[in-house]
Amino acid sequence: MVVRIDEAGAVGVVETRYFDYPGSLLLESGRELGPIRLAYETYGTLTPAKDNAVFILHALSADAHAAGFHAEDLRKPNAKPGWWDIMIGPGKAFDTDRFYIVCSNIIGGCMGSTGPNCLNPATGNRYALDFPIVTIGDMVEAERLLMDHLDIPRWYAVSGGSMGGMRALQWAVVYPDRVERCIPIATTHRLTAQGIAFNAVGRAAIMSDPNWRNGQYYDDEEPANGLSVARMIGHITYLSEQSMHEKFGRSLRNAVEYTWNFTPEFSVETYLQYQGDEFVKRFDANSYLYITKAMDYFDLGARAESSAEGYGPQAESLTAAMEGVSARFLVLSFSSDWLFPTSQSREIVRALRLNGIDVSFVEIQSSYGHDAFLLEAEEITRLIKGFLQ
Amino acid sequence: MVVRIDEAGAVGVVETRYFDYPGSLLLESGRELGPIRLAYETYGTLTPAKDNAVFILHALSADAHAAGFHAEDLRKPNAKPGWWDIMIGPGKAFDTDRFYIVCSNIIGGCMGSTGPNCLNPATGNRYALDFPIVTIGDMVEAERLLMDHLDIPRWYAVSGGSMGGMRALQWAVVYPDRVERCIPIATTHRLTAQGIAFNAVGRAAIMSDPNWRNGQYYDDEEPANGLSVARMIGHITYLSEQSMHEKFGRSLRNAVEYTWNFTPEFSVETYLQYQGDEFVKRFDANSYLYITKAMDYFDLGARAESSAEGYGPQAESLTAAMEGVSARFLVLSFSSDWLFPTSQSREIVRALRLNGIDVSFVEIQSSYGHDAFLLEAEEITRLIKGFLQ
Repeated sequence: MVVRIDEAGAVGVVETRYFDYPGSLLLESGRELGPIRLAYETYGTLTPAKDNAVFILHALSADAHAAGFHAEDLRKPNAKPGWWDIMIGPGKAFDTDRFYIVCSNIIGGCMGSTGPNCLNPATGNRYALDFPIVTIGDMVEAERLLMDHLDIPRWYAVSGGSMGGMRALQWAVVYPDRVERCIPIATTHRLTAQGIAFNAVGRAAIMSDPNWRNGQYYDDEEPANGLSVARMIGHITYLSEQSMHEKFGRSLRNAVEYTWNFTPEFSVETYLQYQGDEFVKRFDANSYLYITKAMDYFDLGARAESSAEGYGPQAESLTAAMEGVSARFLVLSFSSDWLFPTSQSREIVRALRLNGIDVSFVEIQSSYGHDAFLLEAEEITRLIKGFLQ
Repeated sequence: MVVRIDEAGAVGVVETRYFDYPGSLLLESGRELGPIRLAYETYGTLTPAKDNAVFILHALSADAHAAGFHAEDLRKPNAKPGWWDIMIGPGKAFDTDRFYIVCSNIIGGCMGSTGPNCLNPATGNRYALDFPIVTIGDMVEAERLLMDHLDIPRWYAVSGGSMGGMRALQWAVVYPDRVERCIPIATTHRLTAQGIAFNAVGRAAIMSDPNWRNGQYYDDEEPANGLSVARMIGHITYLSEQSMHEKFGRSLRNAVEYTWNFTPEFSVETYLQYQGDEFVKRFDANSYLYITKAMDYFDLGARAESSAEGYGPQAESLTAAMEGVSARFLVLSFSSDWLFPTSQSREIVRALRLNGIDVSFVEIQSSYGHDAFLLEAEEITRLIKGFLQ
């Protein structure tokens, strides 16, 4: 396949850059992390007034490479563009003719930013479980360091889906004077018990893999089986029952007759197995633990009471947490998303409105489930374009 | 705690018995299984006319011990009665003053009936993966052998939840002249793609546990980690999001502050971990593979075309499969059951009605999810009592 990088809407060949922060961050846990490296990419041009920067926030397993192609990927067959290429480029939702787009990999991740697979300067070995627990708030602090480094006074908009939406919300709450518009998509101010449960089982799968060795696997075999199972579980939650039915039904992958053994044979089985196998090639198991833990801990309403009661899950003060917010909001959810259901977006919208904040809310009808934020490009584009005018 | 086995509604002390069938069964796969042992229990008294026998069918992880107490359990603290004790006993839904109740463990199981953990007479070793794949239909064939052994011409009723409901449906279709009434609860004529997906991930967790050793673990350590993860996944699907929220929310098990490490700390996490740990003490990992596979293969509509096209998943002929059914039906589903959703019960009801079969259908409003069939005793009892009059 010849990749047509010159096609309309494409940002072309892009490069990941690195920002190294020599100091350290005081984390919400009380521990420190530093020095810090952040992998990031930018598309488009910052205006002299520096008033057109849009920050794109990735979800659990993605990275700084949100759009365009890496030069080395173009030499591969079936090169794939960045993870939100359908949304970023000339004339697209996040229009690079107009905006300066920034996307960076989270701390705790494994895609170029400081995470558990990096060298710990204190020991000379990989961090592994010496890496401190990081929160959604800590990730945003690291992103704020990058923002300062890029000399951007204020985001024209911040936007992301799923865990990216959590950070978008955190940005609007913690840095109200630096966020003009906020577009959280298919996200929540805190996970449901069921959401925590799925993450917990994924972590149990990794940590019970003998190759995990309490996180010390970097010089040996990785806990590939555990990470693969964790990813398979995750994948079920990203799709709706309806989309699984439409995509796979009860069809068999390679046969019309049952195999009468335990080899994966239903299409949905082989699909999940493939997703698990592919994931372990590119993702670090320890990062999976750290990132899902950050998602579990995230509770925007608890934050308002954190000084008095500690950063615990006891608070119910989402409205209070939203008090100082000044950004305008476009909140998007998807009708078939059962992992981050519309009811949670409504709670966010309610808290914003109780604070008199300007918020548009749309539940998009889609059968794609949680993954819809990566797939329903047409409707999301129309809504975001309108909002960013 | 003193167990009051003499309380109203209790069947008292019961015993598991064993039926040994010396011959062998020709299975749907074409393979043979024999000799066959079935563990079973009975409560109440068979009338001289033998017209009051009710067959109770257990779900994935249960057994023949449906009601009352085993003598040896009474010596333990916190002795628990059989798995459906709330439904079976004097004056209860399945009234032992009136009915002769039979419950047997499935073939492929690990609770006393012939399964992969039993000795293979052909080799003198445990079956392990030499055990043939069994289907819901094969399980019912073995149950029919027990029925003949007990000299019961016709079931007054057959009833079960989840996989027990699958077998109830199979009984009504395959032995129309031996089933007077059928009460399938929280079940389906075939799993959704999502249902297969959850089973597939559970199997992947077991089979990727190094202790599984292709099923040959009986003389060594068991694949406890894999089985525990499989059970944790299952448990999430048995509860509704709402019941998880009400039961656990985001509460922490032992603290008001986060631990800042990966020890399970949310109540929902420690609950799932506990469920996984307890399950491995009583269940065989290979049986988990065989039973979930039987559930995945079950497709009542495909059966009608099996002679022409093979027993594959290509058929859509549920109505045709129901053609010869003569039993009266009471079909029950639960509003918050997302694993065996009401929509699937409606498909069963539709196929029955298209065949002119007498069917009552009730979707019970419940927040308990799939587990409601074990918990919503009051409403189920009222409905079943009315139906069995």
